Formats: sequence, C-alpha cells, structure tokens
Amino acid sequence: MLAGDRPFPFECGDNGAVTTIDLNADLGEGFGRWTLTDDAGLLDVITSANVACGYHAGDPQTMDRVCRIAAERGVAIGAQVSYRDLAGFGRRFIDTDPADLEADVLYQVGALEAFARAAGTRVAYVKPHGALYNAVVHHEAQAAAVVAAVQRYDGQLDLLGLPGSRLLALAGEAGLRAVAEGFVDRAYTADGTLLPRNESGAIVAEAGRPARAVRLAMDQRVDTVAGGEIPMRVESLCVHGDSPDAVATARDVRAALESAGAAIRAFVAE
Amino acid sequence: MLAGDRPFPFECGDNGAVTTIDLNADLGEGFGRWTLTDDAGLLDVITSANVACGYHAGDPQTMDRVCRIAAERGVAIGAQVSYRDLAGFGRRFIDTDPADLEADVLYQVGALEAFARAAGTRVAYVKPHGALYNAVVHHEAQAAAVVAAVQRYDGQLDLLGLPGSRLLALAGEAGLRAVAEGFVDRAYTADGTLLPRNESGAIVAEAGRPARAVRLAMDQRVDTVAGGEIPMRVESLCVHGDSPDAVATARDVRAALESAGAAIRAFVAE
Amino acid sequence: MLAGDRPFPFECGDNGAVTTIDLNADLGEGFGRWTLTDDAGLLDVITSANVACGYHAGDPQTMDRVCRIAAERGVAIGAQVSYRDLAGFGRRFIDTDPADLEADVLYQVGALEAFARAAGTRVAYVKPHGALYNAVVHHEAQAAAVVAAVQRYDGQLDLLGLPGSRLLALAGEAGLRAVAEGFVDRAYTADGTLLPRNESGAIVAEAGRPARAVRLAMDQRVDTVAGGEIPMRVESLCVHGDSPDAVATARDVRAALESAGAAIRAFVAE
Amino acid sequence: MLAGDRPFPFECGDNGAVTTIDLNADLGEGFGRWTLTDDAGLLDVITSANVACGYHAGDPQTMDRVCRIAAERGVAIGAQVSYRDLAGFGRRFIDTDPADLEADVLYQVGALEAFARAAGTRVAYVKPHGALYNAVVHHEAQAAAVVAAVQRYDGQLDLLGLPGSRLLALAGEAGLRAVAEGFVDRAYTADGTLLPRNESGAIVAEAGRPARAVRLAMDQRVDTVAGGEIPMRVESLCVHGDSPDAVATARDVRAALESAGAAIRAFVAE
Repeated sequence: MLAGDRPFPFECGDNGAVTTIDLNADLGEGFGRWTLTDDAGLLDVITSANVACGYHAGDPQTMDRVCRIAAERGVAIGAQVSYRDLAGFGRRFIDTDPADLEADVLYQVGALEAFARAAGTRVAYVKPHGALYNAVVHHEAQAAAVVAAVQRYDGQLDLLGLPGSRLLALAGEAGLRAVAEGFVDRAYTADGTLLPRNESGAIVAEAGRPARAVRLAMDQRVDTVAGGEIPMRVESLCVHGDSPDAVATARDVRAALESAGAAIRAFVAE
Repeated sequence: MLAGDRPFPFECGDNGAVTTIDLNADLGEGFGRWTLTDDAGLLDVITSANVACGYHAGDPQTMDRVCRIAAERGVAIGAQVSYRDLAGFGRRFIDTDPADLEADVLYQVGALEAFARAAGTRVAYVKPHGALYNAVVHHEAQAAAVVAAVQRYDGQLDLLGLPGSRLLALAGEAGLRAVAEGFVDRAYTADGTLLPRNESGAIVAEAGRPARAVRLAMDQRVDTVAGGEIPMRVESLCVHGDSPDAVATARDVRAALESAGAAIRAFVAE
Repeated sequence: MLAGDRPFPFECGDNGAVTTIDLNADLGEGFGRWTLTDDAGLLDVITSANVACGYHAGDPQTMDRVCRIAAERGVAIGAQVSYRDLAGFGRRFIDTDPADLEADVLYQVGALEAFARAAGTRVAYVKPHGALYNAVVHHEAQAAAVVAAVQRYDGQLDLLGLPGSRLLALAGEAGLRAVAEGFVDRAYTADGTLLPRNESGAIVAEAGRPARAVRLAMDQRVDTVAGGEIPMRVESLCVHGDSPDAVATARDVRAALESAGAAIRAFVAE
Repeated sequence: MLAGDRPFPFECGDNGAVTTIDLNADLGEGFGRWTLTDDAGLLDVITSANVACGYHAGDPQTMDRVCRIAAERGVAIGAQVSYRDLAGFGRRFIDTDPADLEADVLYQVGALEAFARAAGTRVAYVKPHGALYNAVVHHEAQAAAVVAAVQRYDGQLDLLGLPGSRLLALAGEAGLRAVAEGFVDRAYTADGTLLPRNESGAIVAEAGRPARAVRLAMDQRVDTVAGGEIPMRVESLCVHGDSPDAVATARDVRAALESAGAAIRAFVAE
C-alpha cells in the first residue's frame, strides 16, 4: 500500500504505533445434546466471543458456561442475535416485521446478559448472525430494528458487522459505536460483500488464512473473487467457530498477526 | 379470629395500622398470533405483574408491551419462569436436571429484564409458573435450582410462591426475600396446597372471590375443601389472568379489599 | 356477464345444470392452551377442512379432534402446510431451501394423515398457508418443492391454491389435480392476487361476503380494488376460519349460495 | 444354560435350527445444522432402524434421507417416538397427559410414514425413546397411551421395548406384536431394567459388547450389575447410534453373532 492511499486504521499512527486488532469467533453454537464449537479452545485464542442466544443455537447451560469461561479469561462477550430459526440455524432470510425483530433482539441480548452478569461481567456488543447478518447489509428496516433494539437496551453496547453495511451506518448515526470486521475464511466480492456460503470458492482454504488476516489487519486490504484487492477498514477479524479446525486456524491466525507486530486486543472499551 | 391466635400479618399493628396487600396476576400469556390475557385491563387493577418469559407463553413483543404499560402505571414486574414447554403451557412436570433448570431461570429472567430496562424499570421478583410452581413446593433440587438462579442473578430480587413451600424456605435461607401469596380463585387442601386444577371444585366461583380475598388479606385465613379454615400468612393475592372474567374479578376483589380498609400496594421495595 | 364472454365454470352447463361449489376454511389453528377457530362450528358449514399441521399452528390433539369430526360429517380433509414458524403463525416469508421445504411438506402431510387414518379417512388435498401461499404464486422453486412433495407422497392428492399461481400451473404439469379457490373476505388486485393483509381495505366487510360468494360461484367474477371486475374461475371458496364471526359468515355465505341455486359439495373425488 | 432351564428363543428349535436375531439402532438423531449419528454407516450393519421423528431429534430432510437409504438396503423402519423435548433430547420425564401423548405418538408415526411411503416402503414398528422408553416400563397410563396410538394407527405395527415392560404387556393384550430387545452397551439391574444413564457403570465398554450380544442372542441371558446372570428373552439387540464408535461397535457385534452362527434378520414380517 502506498502511503497516503487511504487513512490508516484506528490506533495506527504514522510514527510506528502498534496496530491493534480484535479476534472474534462465533461460540456456543450447540443446542442441548448437540455441540458444534470448541468453545473452551477458542476462548484461549480470541478476544471477543459472539455467543449464540437461543434463536439459531445456544441453550442456556451452554450460554452460562461460555460466559463463565469468557469472564475468567477476560474475553469480551457479544450477543450473536438471529432470526428465530433453530431448524435453519438462522441461515434463512425471514421477512420478520421490524417491530418483532426489535423485540427479538432485545430478548436475546437480555437473556445473554443474565449469564454475563452472573459471571461478573456484561454484554459488550451485538453482532447479527447468519441470514440476519447478510440482510442488514442492505435491508434498511431490519437494520434499523436491530439498531433501535440496541439503543433501547443500552447505548453503551457496540455493534459489530460488515464494513459498508446499513447496520453500521445506522448505528453510527444513532450514536452507537460501529465496529467493522473482516473474515479470514470467507471470499469477498468486488463490492466488499461476502460470497454466499453455498457458492463455489466461498470458503478460503486454511493455509491462506493467516496471510489474509495479516493483510487485513496491517494493511486494511483484502483480495476478492473478481481478482485484485479492495481496501477494507476493520477493527476485528472473525475466525469462524463451527469448522472442525477452528481452534487450530485461530491459533495460526493469531500467531501470524503477532509475528507481524499486531497487538491482539478486544475492541470494546474496558 | 381471636386476638393472639397467631401473629398479625406484616405491617399490621394492633393499634389500627392499615393492612397492606399486593395484588398479582399472570400476564402476557399469549404467543405470537394467540392471546389469552387482557394485559392492559389487568394492569389497571393489580400492583405486581407476573410476566410470561417465552417458555410456557410470552413472545418478545408482548413482553415489551406489558413492561411498557407496567412501567407507566407503576406496577412491579416479576418474571414468571417456567419449564420449557410451549405445547403444554408449562403445566406438565418435567424432570429437568437442576443445572439445566438453573440456567433456564437465568435465561428467562434476563430476557424479561431487557424489556423492563428498555421501559426504564427492572425485574423485581421471580414467580414460578404452573407445574414448576407446584413442583417447588416439595421438590428440593428444583426449588434449590430456582433459588440459586435468582441468587446468581441479583440478590435484590424477591421470590413469590406458596406459603410453606420449599421454594420460600430455601429463598429465606439464602437471604432472599420470600413473599407468600394466596389464591382467590383456587381451592386449598387442608395442608395449604392447591387442589390440582383438574379436580372437581378446584376453581372457586367468581362470586366467592372478593370475600375470600378480604378474609385472606385482613385475617390471614382461608377455607379448605376439607371444611374449616387454616391460617395462611400472605403478602400478596393472586388474581389469575387467563379467565375471560379476569379483569372484572380483579376489580371486584380490589374494591372489596379497599372497602374493608386494606391498602393495595406492591410488595417489592420501591 | 355476456354469454360467450369466457367458458362457464366446471359442471356448469348452459342448459340449466347446477353450479357446484366447494366451501373451505382454515381449521385447527390453535396450539396447546391457545385456540383460534371454532372448528366444530365451521365443520357444520364447510365441505373441505384445511387443517393446520403443527408448523404455523395445530397441536396433535387438535388435529385429532378436527379429523374425527370431519370424518363424521363427511368433510374432506386437506393439509394446510406452512413454513416452520409458530411464532409468526406462518405469515412471514422464509427463504427455505427447496429441498428443506419439500421435506417439510412431506412431514406435515404425513403427520395429518395419521389422524385422518385413525378417523377412517384420508388426507385428500394440500393447501399452502399464509406466507407460503403467497410465495408459491410467483416463487418457482418453492412452488416446485410443494408440488414435488405431493407427487412423492401420493399422486392422488389435489392441490388447492390461487388461480393463476405457479403452484397450480406446476401441479397441473405434474399431473396433479389443481383446484383454484376464491376468497369471500379478501380484496383482490387487478391482476387477481390478494391485497396484502396489512394494507387498508384488505378485508371485505362481512355484509358484502355472501353476494361476493354468489358472484364468484355463479358467474366466476370478482371485483377488485382497482374498480371493475375480473373473471376468476374457482372450484372452491375460502371462508376464513380465524375471525370471531367466522361461523356466522360461513353460514350466511352458504345460505346465499344455496338460495342462488348452487350445490355445495367438496371438490375432492369421493 | 441347562436344557429345559427355560424355553428357547423364537425360531430356535432343539434340532439345530438357526438362531435369528435383529439388530436395531437409533438413527437420524441430528437436527438441522447438527448431526449425531452416522446413519449411512449404521444402515450397512443393522436390520431395523429406529428413526427420530422430530420430537427429540430428527429434522424432515434427515428423516427423508434415512428412509431412502433404509429402503434401498432392505432395513426395516421404525418410528422412535418421544416426548416433545428437543432441548432435552427426550431424556427428561414429562408428565404428559395420556390423551396428549397418544396424539403425539400418532403425529410422529404419521410424519415418518410420509418419508417411508415416498421411499416405497412403510413404518413397520414403533419404539419409544429416552425418558419415554423408561417411563413405559412402569407407567401404566403412558404405556397404554402409546399402545392406543399404535392400535388406532395400524394394528400391523409392532412395538419394540424392554422385556417385562408394561408397554409390551399391554401391546400383547391389545393384539399387537410385542418385540423385546436387549442392549449390548447398557448395564442391567437384577430386575432387568437399565441402570440409569447417569450412574457409574451404566455404559458397557466396547470390548465387552460382542460377547454380550452373543450371550443375549444365543443363550438369552445377560449379566447384571448385581453380579450373576438373568434370563432375558429378546428378538432384537440395540446397538446405540449416538456414540462416536457406533458403527465399529455394530460391526463387531454383527461379526461376533455371525461367527456364533446367528442369522441377522429384521423381526418385522416381510
């Protein structure tokens, strides 16, 4: 990247200041008898935990355990809110009425807060999951509903989402802190959205993820399926939680970032 | 009742002090397209609202609306926690593992708190619903799980339940405020438990409820299906929410209590 | 209508033959503690019962009871299949994968068949509910999934839907009997689709329904919100089940049709 | 075993006839995004598939796939019916009203039948799952409800359960075929019931299962946690489906039985 190309990322000065980046992952994605994520393993590596709140996954005991371990290790807790869709794992768009969606988000954040509170900490941010994550990139009414829920709940909560999304734009307008994230394992289109999960090439091979993480964190650029790179300002990197190799990948990503000189730190205020 | 028969109820002195009683009702017992309770109507009459939290009934929008109206009218908000059983309306005993039950209670209280908080108030107490209500009269492990959940969440929350129940005993031992309630519409057995809902005579006719309420509030006594009366110390009276005549009954009960000189006031600390 | 304007409806000759029409209604739309429809009352008036199968409403005991009464009264039983969405009563579009939707339809039809079979009869047709009903008017992949499910289950089942819908077109192509229905209580746009339920004027006043039913049944025409009438060939009229006045409305509609000389008869083969 | 000790098992004559035994396993125990059992692997080894029907596990697409493979391989299909309890995987006793339970069983059997039918076969038997399995050993009303559901559905269905259970006794009295099964991986008490899953020693080590299977199949005897053996007439052996080593265990059991001279064959009539 040429100097002056575009502004440096947050906390990154021109005088040798350290680049700081957050690592987030989706946790607690089991339900009852079923498990998916190695929660304890990932909590050793990441700085922010997106915890499933029961709508796409996440039973109360799992939420409790994840919050307890996160609190012990100083990992920030975020509510990963979803459409109400256990059968579809929250991966199907639902044309939910905005008033319902606002209440659904409040419900999920509150439920998670109980466990955070019992563990001596708090819910620090909200991140939409799955189909809702993709919807609020463009869907004005649903994006506004998520923002309204967070505002009504607590103006101190941050919103984590896709750079350039309507969600983050509306969050910023509402005076909430909007935090952009990059994905180390998902392919991008030329306009900076994620290639849909069911399309060929949507998942980046493990071997390529550490370099990608470094490029995103240090240079704030990412390559796209169209060829070439685009600038992408992010404060956090998502290392997905539900692949079998999630912990190993996360460790490799973290090691590469540290080797490159980045400081790994939660984006939420202490 | 002869003087000295047994101690007067709380706040009731021998020098003409006013008897104070709380009126509680089960609210928000709809789900999505379905409604059951006249929430707005009851919130005009009662002083404590037991709000369904999504396990036996209670969708997020309904929880939101009930909390908003309750906050406006100064009605105390309680979490009516249940087994996870929408299909059975929480009226079937489930042999839930205590660790699961503890997490289930935390989940429900937290979910409701989000709406209370958004409405500028808080969840002030917890009351078990249906089969869980009856189970924790005797079931030590489940009663302990409910108490543990409340303690872990916030020692400032009160527990509302049946006089003589294990729930209230354990709550008191744990340092929580244990509040006993009487039912104006349910028949009692000689040992002070409720006659099961499916037995003949379990529901007290409407016409008899105001006098019953007065007897409970002013004299702390209630008649039983065995004949005769038993003493029953209560700080709150439950006027059930899901009968078609719930609002009219509640109004009649309140009027009778006021005529008898009782002050109607929430049991929770301001 | 001028003679020759367009072909007469089925079984309606120019030589005095009797017009035959089916009356269908949505039944069994309660869930557990909640009820919505006066199932027994409607089963006295209609000839085809669209029974909720547990996805948007409909608990097993209700399905059992509705099938029993329908069998006694000779009312045809249809599976009213839906997206999996109890909280939204099936009224929200869900971008379900067609393979999932196909399996969802099979599941619901089979579940209902158990009760029909126990009552000595069978499921005779399938009708999509709510948002799915509207989706399959245009959504090719979801319409094809519903048709595929019915074909795989039993080629003897009919499909009931909106005239001109992709659902009925694909059903016909697949060799299934496609039955078009008109609504006596819903407003139509000029292109023959239903005005969305949340728009003003979407619900036709009760007083206007009998005349509308007669116009649809005898003349196969209906008026639209754009003004004027459009032709609409239907073999069945839907009298909705979940309004408080559903039974009275259905009786009035049936009486008006009989006065006009129509024979009320199920569309399914005996 | 001494000759004359007790009657030989079914199809086992004293003149060298071959002992026949069925192998059953619990399949389809995933839900949506979550999987548990290696269905395709087990369907290569077993002769009867107990398929989850959506109440404790089992989404429609999984049910469809299991039925298709079972039909291809000639494996008999049974409905593994459960309490409605996804969150508890059907492992918690629920005090379900018998009328509700009867309808719940019909619902599940019918839902599975749709997929069996689409695959060109049928549901051949019913086996209760988890807590319901244990309840109907002793719980008269729930056992009767399961039997009533099967009778109302189709008197040709068999019932699979614990030897000596009320379920099998009532099934026999009702004229249904009652099939007793033994467990190769679960410890027995002296009275022939299963040691609860959460007690120490409840699960038999893999290495011991083949010999146990042979003893059960050939000699109709099993050892107990009290020491010593008890007679146990069984027509089927259950090799559980949800352990990681389920397929390997099932293969070892089958190989041991075949080495011992047993014929592995479904118990249901062709």
